[in-house]
Amino acid sequence: MKRSIEDTSIVMVGAGNLATHLARAFYKKGFRILQVYSRTPESAARLAQEVEADPVTDPAALTTWGRLYIAALTDEALPGLIPALTSGRNRALWVHTAGSLPLDLWAGHAERYGVFYPLQTFSRQHEVDFGRIPVFVEGSDPDTTALLRAVAATVSTKVYEATSAQRRYLHLGAVLACNFTNHLYTLASDLLVRHGLPFDALQPLIDETARKVHELSPHQAQTGPAARGDRHVMDEHLRLLEEDPYLAQVYRLLSQGIEERKNKD
Amino acid sequence: MKRSIEDTSIVMVGAGNLATHLARAFYKKGFRILQVYSRTPESAARLAQEVEADPVTDPAALTTWGRLYIAALTDEALPGLIPALTSGRNRALWVHTAGSLPLDLWAGHAERYGVFYPLQTFSRQHEVDFGRIPVFVEGSDPDTTALLRAVAATVSTKVYEATSAQRRYLHLGAVLACNFTNHLYTLASDLLVRHGLPFDALQPLIDETARKVHELSPHQAQTGPAARGDRHVMDEHLRLLEEDPYLAQVYRLLSQGIEERKNKD
Repeated sequence: MKRSIEDTSIVMVGAGNLATHLARAFYKKGFRILQVYSRTPESAARLAQEVEADPVTDPAALTTWGRLYIAALTDEALPGLIPALTSGRNRALWVHTAGSLPLDLWAGHAERYGVFYPLQTFSRQHEVDFGRIPVFVEGSDPDTTALLRAVAATVSTKVYEATSAQRRYLHLGAVLACNFTNHLYTLASDLLVRHGLPFDALQPLIDETARKVHELSPHQAQTGPAARGDRHVMDEHLRLLEEDPYLAQVYRLLSQGIEERKNKD
Repeated sequence: MKRSIEDTSIVMVGAGNLATHLARAFYKKGFRILQVYSRTPESAARLAQEVEADPVTDPAALTTWGRLYIAALTDEALPGLIPALTSGRNRALWVHTAGSLPLDLWAGHAERYGVFYPLQTFSRQHEVDFGRIPVFVEGSDPDTTALLRAVAATVSTKVYEATSAQRRYLHLGAVLACNFTNHLYTLASDLLVRHGLPFDALQPLIDETARKVHELSPHQAQTGPAARGDRHVMDEHLRLLEEDPYLAQVYRLLSQGIEERKNKD
């Protein structure tokens, strides 16, 4: 009988936000999840139950029967755990999910290995449509890359290959476009609330700003006082920020970057 | 016969992005737009035709018959034009649409005046659902404020009052959450493209980042290396940015702000 890609049995190493969303996505597509590992018994049990797997809290208790082991742990925790995870299971395919960790982290510990990097921000409470999340894969050899592409294609319509070097820039780009953007939302929210205004009022603007770059390049979509070179408004804003040196510094630096880019046109 | 709010005849002073979206929104709700003013004949003609108004390119040609004159001009152009606009029309209600200009810009030039500030970013090409755009109004007297609230309520479900001082902070908040956010998209896009990666891959992350703050406060939604205090990843990102001093400075400053806020928790 020909085996289909969904016959790839999975062991999920990790039970955090990403591990949860990944396990759910594979489970929904009919993959068998054998085990869920977490050093926290409650976390292992919670996710294992959801995807009909067995919970494991000790690396030594990991099965040797999995075909694909997905390590979705923090960048700090993973490297030190690799020997214990792979020992006796080094013939399986091991992948990690981290933007900033290189492929060759696995070298010497597993025969076949790779990276499975979904570019999205995950919160446990909130369901995401995994099918639209870009997944970047990298394999230790062409067969492994092909297998990872096939596995990724079962849960996402957007599968790319990226080298370890490229993936670091993806992660950095994600920090800019997601983490830093959210920080600007925080700064705007704090400012409004301090002046008796509802943060909610900014929501349509935030949505439209994100939506616009579906149609225009971010460069084309740039508006505002710095893009217009409107010194009058910028000076007034800096006066408003005299008592907030951090925010004034952010305002100056980002306005400068916007102006310089517009002047290059 | 009782007059309804839609009998308020409007003169649109300006034909840029905001003027276009405002005129369309009022026109759709059945308001009569008498004239569209722009010093550029093509712009006046284009918008005037769209909303069945007469185009005007000389302030002296503005009708005296309007009830509500909406000046949607740039912050630089408006103040100098006010005497010519209001002369002979100072008994009408004059409003401007600028976040950073105070209410009393009109004082001495009109008997009744106000501000009608929609908090959104507008592109001429792209239709927006005006009904969901927050509009902040301010009037020279309680009757004017009430009238502006009523007019605003015909085109938007989100009508607020804001003082001139508050409106300046709204505008500043909008610069942070929209203009600066878009600049971060630009920086991320440039970075990815430089490394052979598609900007499109960031779109789901950008959308989710904006969507998340509908449910969580931006403070709760903050993730990433700086929020985790992950010096290892941050140091690596700064190494990647060694040849881009501007981006490195942005990375340092925003990471510092995120870390400081997390440490306050």
